[in-house]
Amino acid sequence: MNKSDVTGIAQKAKYAGLKLGAAGTAKKDAALEYMAEGLLQNSALIREANDIDVGAAKKQGLQSAFIDRLTITEKTLKSMIDSIREVKALKDPVGEITKAWTRPNGLLVGRMRIPLGVILMIYEARPNVTADASALCIKSGNAVILKGGSEAINSNRAIAVVLSDALKKADLPSEAIQFIDTTDKDVLYEFLKQDELIDLVIPRGGESLIRAVAEHSRIPVLKHYKGICHVFVDADADKDMAKAVCFNAKVQRPGVCNAMETMLVHKDIAGQFLPEMITLYKKAGVEIRGCERTRGIVHDIKPATEQDWFTEYLDLILSVKVVDSLDQAIGHINHYGSHHTDSIVTSNVGHSMRFFREVDSSTVLVNASTRFSDGFQLGLGAEIGISTSKLHAFGPMGLEELTAQKFVIMGSGQVRE
Amino acid sequence: MNKSDVTGIAQKAKYAGLKLGAAGTAKKDAALEYMAEGLLQNSALIREANDIDVGAAKKQGLQSAFIDRLTITEKTLKSMIDSIREVKALKDPVGEITKAWTRPNGLLVGRMRIPLGVILMIYEARPNVTADASALCIKSGNAVILKGGSEAINSNRAIAVVLSDALKKADLPSEAIQFIDTTDKDVLYEFLKQDELIDLVIPRGGESLIRAVAEHSRIPVLKHYKGICHVFVDADADKDMAKAVCFNAKVQRPGVCNAMETMLVHKDIAGQFLPEMITLYKKAGVEIRGCERTRGIVHDIKPATEQDWFTEYLDLILSVKVVDSLDQAIGHINHYGSHHTDSIVTSNVGHSMRFFREVDSSTVLVNASTRFSDGFQLGLGAEIGISTSKLHAFGPMGLEELTAQKFVIMGSGQVRE
Repeated sequence: MNKSDVTGIAQKAKYAGLKLGAAGTAKKDAALEYMAEGLLQNSALIREANDIDVGAAKKQGLQSAFIDRLTITEKTLKSMIDSIREVKALKDPVGEITKAWTRPNGLLVGRMRIPLGVILMIYEARPNVTADASALCIKSGNAVILKGGSEAINSNRAIAVVLSDALKKADLPSEAIQFIDTTDKDVLYEFLKQDELIDLVIPRGGESLIRAVAEHSRIPVLKHYKGICHVFVDADADKDMAKAVCFNAKVQRPGVCNAMETMLVHKDIAGQFLPEMITLYKKAGVEIRGCERTRGIVHDIKPATEQDWFTEYLDLILSVKVVDSLDQAIGHINHYGSHHTDSIVTSNVGHSMRFFREVDSSTVLVNASTRFSDGFQLGLGAEIGISTSKLHAFGPMGLEELTAQKFVIMGSGQVRE
Repeated sequence: MNKSDVTGIAQKAKYAGLKLGAAGTAKKDAALEYMAEGLLQNSALIREANDIDVGAAKKQGLQSAFIDRLTITEKTLKSMIDSIREVKALKDPVGEITKAWTRPNGLLVGRMRIPLGVILMIYEARPNVTADASALCIKSGNAVILKGGSEAINSNRAIAVVLSDALKKADLPSEAIQFIDTTDKDVLYEFLKQDELIDLVIPRGGESLIRAVAEHSRIPVLKHYKGICHVFVDADADKDMAKAVCFNAKVQRPGVCNAMETMLVHKDIAGQFLPEMITLYKKAGVEIRGCERTRGIVHDIKPATEQDWFTEYLDLILSVKVVDSLDQAIGHINHYGSHHTDSIVTSNVGHSMRFFREVDSSTVLVNASTRFSDGFQLGLGAEIGISTSKLHAFGPMGLEELTAQKFVIMGSGQVRE
């Protein structure tokens, strides 16, 4: 594949997307079942292809965590198959009339969900994303073009061929799932120029990948760079609840984007709360970096620098700041945060309402852990990514976020005066 | 104003937007009332400033239609004031919980409408847009940066000063309405790079303006380039209804984007329908350009070229094509159209449902004129623009399209397992 093939592939995707958008749920569900069965039947071939990738990665001396994510075991293959069937079981968003009203002249005006069209998924060396993203796109009637990490190219090719064949078996256009079979970056950049044919780009991976995509793309990109998530422990927080929430938000899985990175504590509760909380953290191996006031309450803590408030550690490190008021907490979050996920622990109803309204983040919680900011946890049934910019989608994105809404209008001969 | 001022202005807008987003409806409505009153009280000043612009435009020998749009009369000023009060009377979208559900663990998950943040409006020499767009942005809690056509710079400055002062009177930040007081294009292009501070660009005007904005912008742009709208007269259409709809769609106001440019007629009805319809058109001064089959039925018609099917005439010109089937009509619309507005006249329920689902346009009508594709006509209460791309908004955009939705989650101490 080279640059001159790009427009042709995008055009085929566009055409396939139109066909898929008009297809009913039964046909799309049949395709998803063929996709699941295909992965099972071709598991030997897929794992052989994966062996090539894993062998090359080991030869290159890549990190073991990287190789773990790259490796397709019997268990990961089963989980891919299960995921496809879970997506199949979700409600088809396409065709839903989300609202409708009648105009004085009798026109019935409705808004109908439709697919976006063509989605370009860009991701790192996690072959499961090839199956997961394809399933979500097909269920929502979108054609997808897949660009996975180059270290997984053999695995992704093998999976994509199976998925694409499954579409054919269901009498749907196989070009609704296409795979960019090259490691040449220029080809990817050429795809990112096809704003007449591709409707949306979703990059998933590290910040540098996402920034490179956003910089080169003429197509809208839904993305989040990072998650600098906060928990604010308010003056009248239930202390036990605050401890449970703050512990969970930091420790339960520190390496993910919805883990807490900075804890803000109201000055009126800091004296009682911080010593107990920090003891808990230290037992769990969390390194604390505190503001001056924090260090006045609990000694033996590293100082937090200005840079710390901007940092996503993705690790067992936490910055801690004592604040004077709800206003200061909200100001800190809106200044240093990343518009991802922030939580308040409070018993004050007025404060919880102000926190909801004034914190400029995609997910805002009262009395719950930041770790719930996730499509599955929130009940979307799936997650294709998280957006921290406000256009189109804000927060975890499920099937509905892969749709647009058109106006459908039923008349009886109305004309405009 | 020069390039070095741009970031400062955008930062002020961002900060003002946060304040405005947290303000209640009563305060925003008070500001809108001060805006309306301010325009009335300062009408002499505004019209003096407008005289300067109109004088310069006349000196330059600009077209009379252009000068008409530029001129602020007592009547146009009154209509600006009325528009602001109409926007004030609309329902505030901010804070609305559009849906909410409970998770098995007791978390109450809701989606709350919030402002987008900062909107950059770019438009031509129509000073009324300065007032209309400001009112819509303030009502929806967004800060706005205004860049009007350079020929209207004195008028726009005078209006913007009044509007910005009105915010102060309502104890809201005056920087929520800012005006780019220069005709230097490089300053505008610098604004279009501020993707960290500005959330959305809405260009309104001719296709060349919009293309220039889209090409230079790193910020998402909501736009439509043109409206190549179709009416398809199906085989079993009610002939009188088809005549009324097709006549209205072409003739009622030919110079606007939702006027019909191409009429498609099913071959089974063409023989009866076309002679009568074309006679009506000819009486109204409409020039017809027909396909070969159209010209076989009605003689003395110019031939339509391939280019005609792609053309937005914005004039009393219509291209006409006879088609074999609903499939061919939908295929033609999706290939040659502009995803704006298309209508079918039919008595066939199955065909109307297929037309709704398969026509890839933002507004799809059955048995009604394309001219209804308009925020006011559809009952949105307002219109800030029309989008023909699917991300975020598709079709006419009202107040709701100036909002995003965040996740708000109420817990009672839930943590993730």
